[in-house]
Amino acid sequence: MKKIAILGSTGSIGRQALDVIRALPDELQVIALTGNKNLKLLEIQIKEFQPKMFCSSIKPDIGYSGEFLSVEDIASHPEVDFVIVATSGKAGLSPTLAALKAGKTVALADKEVLVMAGEIIVREASIREAQILPIDSEHSAIWQCLQGEENKPHRLFLTASGGPFYHYSQSQLAAVTPEQALQHPVWKMGRKVTIDSATLMNKGLEVIEAHWLFSFPFDSIEILIHPQSIVHSMVEFIDGSLKAQLSWPDMRLPIQYALSYPQRWTNSELPRLDWDKINSLNFESVDYDKFPCLKLAVDAGKSGGTFPAVLCATDEVAVELFLSHKISFPDIAKIVHKTLEQHRNISQPSLEEILAADNWAREYATRLSRSHCEETEQRGNLEIEI
Amino acid sequence: MKKIAILGSTGSIGRQALDVIRALPDELQVIALTGNKNLKLLEIQIKEFQPKMFCSSIKPDIGYSGEFLSVEDIASHPEVDFVIVATSGKAGLSPTLAALKAGKTVALADKEVLVMAGEIIVREASIREAQILPIDSEHSAIWQCLQGEENKPHRLFLTASGGPFYHYSQSQLAAVTPEQALQHPVWKMGRKVTIDSATLMNKGLEVIEAHWLFSFPFDSIEILIHPQSIVHSMVEFIDGSLKAQLSWPDMRLPIQYALSYPQRWTNSELPRLDWDKINSLNFESVDYDKFPCLKLAVDAGKSGGTFPAVLCATDEVAVELFLSHKISFPDIAKIVHKTLEQHRNISQPSLEEILAADNWAREYATRLSRSHCEETEQRGNLEIEI
Repeated sequence: MKKIAILGSTGSIGRQALDVIRALPDELQVIALTGNKNLKLLEIQIKEFQPKMFCSSIKPDIGYSGEFLSVEDIASHPEVDFVIVATSGKAGLSPTLAALKAGKTVALADKEVLVMAGEIIVREASIREAQILPIDSEHSAIWQCLQGEENKPHRLFLTASGGPFYHYSQSQLAAVTPEQALQHPVWKMGRKVTIDSATLMNKGLEVIEAHWLFSFPFDSIEILIHPQSIVHSMVEFIDGSLKAQLSWPDMRLPIQYALSYPQRWTNSELPRLDWDKINSLNFESVDYDKFPCLKLAVDAGKSGGTFPAVLCATDEVAVELFLSHKISFPDIAKIVHKTLEQHRNISQPSLEEILAADNWAREYATRLSRSHCEETEQRGNLEIEI
Repeated sequence: MKKIAILGSTGSIGRQALDVIRALPDELQVIALTGNKNLKLLEIQIKEFQPKMFCSSIKPDIGYSGEFLSVEDIASHPEVDFVIVATSGKAGLSPTLAALKAGKTVALADKEVLVMAGEIIVREASIREAQILPIDSEHSAIWQCLQGEENKPHRLFLTASGGPFYHYSQSQLAAVTPEQALQHPVWKMGRKVTIDSATLMNKGLEVIEAHWLFSFPFDSIEILIHPQSIVHSMVEFIDGSLKAQLSWPDMRLPIQYALSYPQRWTNSELPRLDWDKINSLNFESVDYDKFPCLKLAVDAGKSGGTFPAVLCATDEVAVELFLSHKISFPDIAKIVHKTLEQHRNISQPSLEEILAADNWAREYATRLSRSHCEETEQRGNLEIEI
């Protein structure tokens, strides 16, 4: 019986992790849940799963005897076997480090943790001999394909659905609304990651994540547009053979694989591919020019230091501005680009330096967008060129 | 340095195995070669590789000091580490058993060995703790996908190019000539297996081979038509996840994987997939009605006993008759069906009983085809109905 702490249980991944645990009561037990602002859902989850520990932004008054602890205390608690980091953005950073320092196995859905502080996280895991297991479908696919292989692979292929606008022209992209961008053709996800999928920023973050998870060089990580999202990623080996992992796009599968690893478990709730309905799996190369966020992210990853933290922070600000109709869809990339350009990089940064860069980037991007909004009102478009 | 014996070195797989060995002189050494009738090529190979032992149907007079031994003596020779069985049909049966009895690792390209005598072969390998490694691209794919997996899979998907006539109508199939059937759209192979690919008999034999290699039930082995032959096969696991193995269709890759296993080796001669050129991988369900050989083979495999030996023997006779323009393409299935129908099955047969069934089938099929040829001359078509 694995005792699981879910950090961010009210988010999309957290809820799906609870679906998996609900379907496998003999193997898995919830021992801790943490939420942020969605207290109502957290209360419902607590009533159902009766975790020993919980945490939220405000201590709810729910007449419940479980211990109210900090997220870090939960992540490193002696009774916790397995920590699912299903938070979003930098919120996962400190509890992930706490879990690794306590030698816990961490299943990571919050990719920003590795993007912002990959070097620190990977070093800590290595010192403590703690495992970091991927939950992102692409990284789970690569991890599955690497099982039993003794040689380092030759290349990794991350697949990308391309999001809802892959074949849009530049002028169509300029007119995209938040409502359109929130309609992902394949995956049902949180709002931030859905917009990141539409800008392909998400794929860039995944390249950085893959770099750290598999200690793999950036130049050997490639991206292939695959609209059906059935091939979740591929590994090419040194002899020219490739392995691909396929499934119906459903996040519960990679979540369950991290929980069952190195076994697999039967779960009748998980969908199976129906080959009578799959006539064709399509692939095309990625257009870096049309989706500048992708190149910005990969370049930030290659430069390293505090650049990836600045990338994440600025993207969060820009996506929020786009969602509140304050900037256009192409402005997201422009704001990220301009902020990265102004950033003075620190190589091999400490956690404090990473968090300071994050702060700086949020402030800079916010200022930039404010002046942009004023300019836009005056001139009708954004003059930041990339 | 692995010391390799290639049984059937002048055939298509034998020649490609030598290509692999030629490219990897630090890892692999030819210690024995055996051929059959193509003495000229065997002499050339002997001159190049200078094997310690050799064998052919007639002892060639080539002023060469290597030992002339029987194929069985070579397969079980103390100096041999690794036996590649690249013979065709039942010729591989006795040397494969000899190799397994001597505890050798056997890489099996001759699928009839497992089809005819799967139970005996698998039992012998298990008693002697000898490994049987697949060389067929489909089985190599499944084997690669199973690496590192702890649970028995849920389903196996054997892919099939469908051969050159997959979308032909019944009347078009009736008019197919040997010359057309020998033009496989993807693979360059020997004549017998090329015709078996066109009738889909080959895929049926592969289902039986997969059943024995992976101790897997027939009902969980499925076939998917995949014209590009890039996905070589797939495994579906109990959690709904699938793994596929992909590569350019080139038999040197599965041959090399068997030789390098559990490692992989770099070989610059092996092609890599170019994803700029792959837009689409297509799949469709198989039409058992149009290609009756497939169902005949799977049914013979399910019935077991001496049926699969009768299937192989009759198919060999029928393909030979088709290649010499004596029967039509659809007649191959008719002859196989009629012969299987007339066979009295022996369950759990001894090797002698298997060989006796093979003999009976050859005689029966030959007689059947003779009377058919006479009938055809009189009436213009074959009256055997399936």
